[in-house]
Amino acid sequence: MRSAITSLPKHSANYAALNPLDFLSRSAGVYPNHPAIIYGDLQYTWQQTQSRCHQLASALHKAGIIKGDTVSVLAANTPELYEAHFGVPMLGAVLNAINCRLDADTVAYILQHSHSKVLLCDREFSAVAKAAVATLKTPPLVIDIDDPAVPLTNKGGGQLIGQMDYEAFLQTGDTGFSPDVEIDEWDPIALNYTSGTTGRPKGVLYHYRGAYLTAMSNVLEWDMPKHPIYLWTLPMFHCNGWCFPWTVAARGGTNVCLRKVTGANIYEQIAKNKVDHFCGAPIVLSMVVNATIEERREFDHICNVMTAAAPPPASVLQSMREQGFAVTHVYGLTETYGPAAVCSAQPDWSTLSIEEQAILGARQGVSYTVGQSVQVLDPESMQPVPRDGETMGEVMFRGNNVMHGYLDNPQATEEAFAGGWFHSGDLGVCYPDGYIQLKDRAKDIIISGGENISSIEVESCLYAHPQVASAAVVAKPDEKWGETPCAFVELHPDLQGEAPVNEAQMIAFCRERIAHYKCPTMVIFTTLPKTSTGKIQKFELRQQV
Amino acid sequence: MRSAITSLPKHSANYAALNPLDFLSRSAGVYPNHPAIIYGDLQYTWQQTQSRCHQLASALHKAGIIKGDTVSVLAANTPELYEAHFGVPMLGAVLNAINCRLDADTVAYILQHSHSKVLLCDREFSAVAKAAVATLKTPPLVIDIDDPAVPLTNKGGGQLIGQMDYEAFLQTGDTGFSPDVEIDEWDPIALNYTSGTTGRPKGVLYHYRGAYLTAMSNVLEWDMPKHPIYLWTLPMFHCNGWCFPWTVAARGGTNVCLRKVTGANIYEQIAKNKVDHFCGAPIVLSMVVNATIEERREFDHICNVMTAAAPPPASVLQSMREQGFAVTHVYGLTETYGPAAVCSAQPDWSTLSIEEQAILGARQGVSYTVGQSVQVLDPESMQPVPRDGETMGEVMFRGNNVMHGYLDNPQATEEAFAGGWFHSGDLGVCYPDGYIQLKDRAKDIIISGGENISSIEVESCLYAHPQVASAAVVAKPDEKWGETPCAFVELHPDLQGEAPVNEAQMIAFCRERIAHYKCPTMVIFTTLPKTSTGKIQKFELRQQV
Repeated sequence: MRSAITSLPKHSANYAALNPLDFLSRSAGVYPNHPAIIYGDLQYTWQQTQSRCHQLASALHKAGIIKGDTVSVLAANTPELYEAHFGVPMLGAVLNAINCRLDADTVAYILQHSHSKVLLCDREFSAVAKAAVATLKTPPLVIDIDDPAVPLTNKGGGQLIGQMDYEAFLQTGDTGFSPDVEIDEWDPIALNYTSGTTGRPKGVLYHYRGAYLTAMSNVLEWDMPKHPIYLWTLPMFHCNGWCFPWTVAARGGTNVCLRKVTGANIYEQIAKNKVDHFCGAPIVLSMVVNATIEERREFDHICNVMTAAAPPPASVLQSMREQGFAVTHVYGLTETYGPAAVCSAQPDWSTLSIEEQAILGARQGVSYTVGQSVQVLDPESMQPVPRDGETMGEVMFRGNNVMHGYLDNPQATEEAFAGGWFHSGDLGVCYPDGYIQLKDRAKDIIISGGENISSIEVESCLYAHPQVASAAVVAKPDEKWGETPCAFVELHPDLQGEAPVNEAQMIAFCRERIAHYKCPTMVIFTTLPKTSTGKIQKFELRQQV
Repeated sequence: MRSAITSLPKHSANYAALNPLDFLSRSAGVYPNHPAIIYGDLQYTWQQTQSRCHQLASALHKAGIIKGDTVSVLAANTPELYEAHFGVPMLGAVLNAINCRLDADTVAYILQHSHSKVLLCDREFSAVAKAAVATLKTPPLVIDIDDPAVPLTNKGGGQLIGQMDYEAFLQTGDTGFSPDVEIDEWDPIALNYTSGTTGRPKGVLYHYRGAYLTAMSNVLEWDMPKHPIYLWTLPMFHCNGWCFPWTVAARGGTNVCLRKVTGANIYEQIAKNKVDHFCGAPIVLSMVVNATIEERREFDHICNVMTAAAPPPASVLQSMREQGFAVTHVYGLTETYGPAAVCSAQPDWSTLSIEEQAILGARQGVSYTVGQSVQVLDPESMQPVPRDGETMGEVMFRGNNVMHGYLDNPQATEEAFAGGWFHSGDLGVCYPDGYIQLKDRAKDIIISGGENISSIEVESCLYAHPQVASAAVVAKPDEKWGETPCAFVELHPDLQGEAPVNEAQMIAFCRERIAHYKCPTMVIFTTLPKTSTGKIQKFELRQQV
């Protein structure tokens, strides 16, 4: 009897590293004259974009950048940041797109921790960058992105601070540059610092394999056809724009760049450039929903919106649908390349009422196709919680769309991967249909009289009040109960002639809807502090109570 | 200065082998009650299909099958063969789906060469299987697929020849079986024997990685949304149905199984089950086009057809479009997991006339998204030929969708991969837009007076004659010219009252359309011999001349 069939060696004919840069080569080859980038009046074809990316790689190479070096970018969603997603990893260098709303101290920390050798910096953020770079012992080479759309401000903002501007820097490179670098699909391609609400941010490393597969899965989960027209409402510094720079390249699509995200700007781009896809945090959806009649524009195609975190309530969903928006709800973390779970609509949901669809669709759902698993596990036993929609556990991920690891932080990496799963730190439940739903961040749970209260559940209840624009609930220390929920509420600016709701009315409103022990014992009407990515900063609220 | 960022080790939280069986787990988890398989009145949900696949794996395990063993199947496109695409590789065993139209001698060779330990055999093919197995020193365990749809024939066909029938065999397995096998994505998942026209067939090995990526790329190239209803017109024994068993699982789609492919059956399934995708050789398109009025059925959705080899002429394309079919043209070989090139339509083609679209769309096109490259190379210099649409070279592929290698044939593997490219043996040209077009098989080229004549070009000319149903051109030895083209022509059965074209008229018809030296010097009107997959058997015609 012969032995079993065994594997043959790899060969250059039949093995290539999974590399999202191949998507650029393919689109430049197959759709050379199709628009790759539109930014105001500026337009680049895929062939031009490829040339510019090669030029960027060549210029960086001449500036001494080699494989494994970090190139940081502090920029808005303009063509330069898109190009960096290809030009930097072409050299095997690591792209570090920095949140452009961070303070100088944090930017300095990130530049130092990542050992950035180059910083591409948009003039809009030059004041912060200048202050950050000034504190560094070995400052990076700074290249200005000199966008004429950015005004000089009275306070000295908008200045040029670098050795050269981006276009001049590109000119130092060759469009035909062919980097002599061996890429392994397990090599780091990008670095994204978490926007930690406490402590220093951690540097999350992505590799080529994960970026390639997430880019693919974005297509699958969204049923995204070839040649999408994709509007850059989601910051590219946010988990590399959920890997969409590579997704759009894989589809031969068009990137519509946008410096300033407003409802009016979104509608304008949909009407003018026929944008059919965009992503964003709930705040972006709010901009669309709350746009004035004057800001809105009619369009006759379906515009697909992918949103994370809190999904829109039924009424908003209904109104968006009527206007031509189709909302897909995803969930993920910086450590999962952005979205790694999707509330995939079941074929039979379309027969349900819009309210029922909104309830089902508000869950975080199931694993991305390329992921191996998303589960709610008991973090002690590492066993799945019962599928009862009630028992809480920690949401955990495993698969090729889980990060490479934290940069220079083996202990945090080990903790994050304990037991063979990535621990999200989010608490959730699992329904009988296998769909998961977030209940809270582990640290946001309120324990009152021994009962767990999900701050999300209380917040959802507050949001149901027609006057509430934003709401956040945190734990307030309580002598008797240990903790009780304290609500912070921001009302709609225009109450349409009605009297603003008061504390007693708000509490009464909640008691009609959720268990009494879950209702806030205190309601504070205020403007809610938000992070640069639009998340409500609960840690600030906690400090207040 | 710190050293560059380097890779961290792999971890079970962030690394999983690319494995198309994960698509089954996901669909069974996310869409448990959605129909996975429809076959006549039989219907299985994704959960049932998963259970049956686990049962099959368990039964095979109990029968002694281990990783690396070969399990062969000789079957029509029925649920059993679909299940084998998951149940067999679950154990790390290798699936060998045998062309069910082969003769007993070839089947015996394949069973022996692959060292098959099990043969699942449909009753329809039991006579051939029995004869084949009888010649083997170590015959496999034979399991009958006892489909009541198969009649017993006068000649003794349709008998049961195995130790047990498939359903009884499944009952020996556990639905909850969890195989304890470590899968590396580079392990072999399937074996497909080439239908070589000369010599013994070669065993082409596929691995998990290539199967996974091709399954994904099928979605991308076809813009296939979730929940397709896929009709099995393409044999699953043909390059594992171009990897569509795994594609349909990845999409949570429905497999409509079909034993007998006819125009009437295709229309019936489209109308009855709302089939929206199917694949096939040109012969399948012919069935659709040539279906009678009585066989045709009206439908009000778009039905997508993926076809390889010769694309339909403009008139056929137009007529299919009007009926609601959208044709995508692909190209590949057994060695490239089926399709690896696609004639991706450019966004601006839709403004062209249907004739122009047919001409552009008749080319083989560009690489699949997951492939690295498809090029026409000069096989001497291994340099690309000029993009002039005229200079011939050999079509070569490289990337993750190129086979693992030939089983037990290192010399053929080495030759196929010479110079770092898979040599297709097909001759083609490259157009200025980078799209390639096949001109001939290397061995089908006719060299007349030192000039290369593409038999495909001459055949296309013959097909333009309204009476021609099928045509094939081969080289005829010639004292003066070395070789000249000899045409074999099959006329339409119904000439609608016109007199059949004769040899002189056929040659005159060609001389009006192509260079005189390319025109056939002899035309033989006959019924053309076809292979089991519908390809015209040119080697038989060559023997005649």
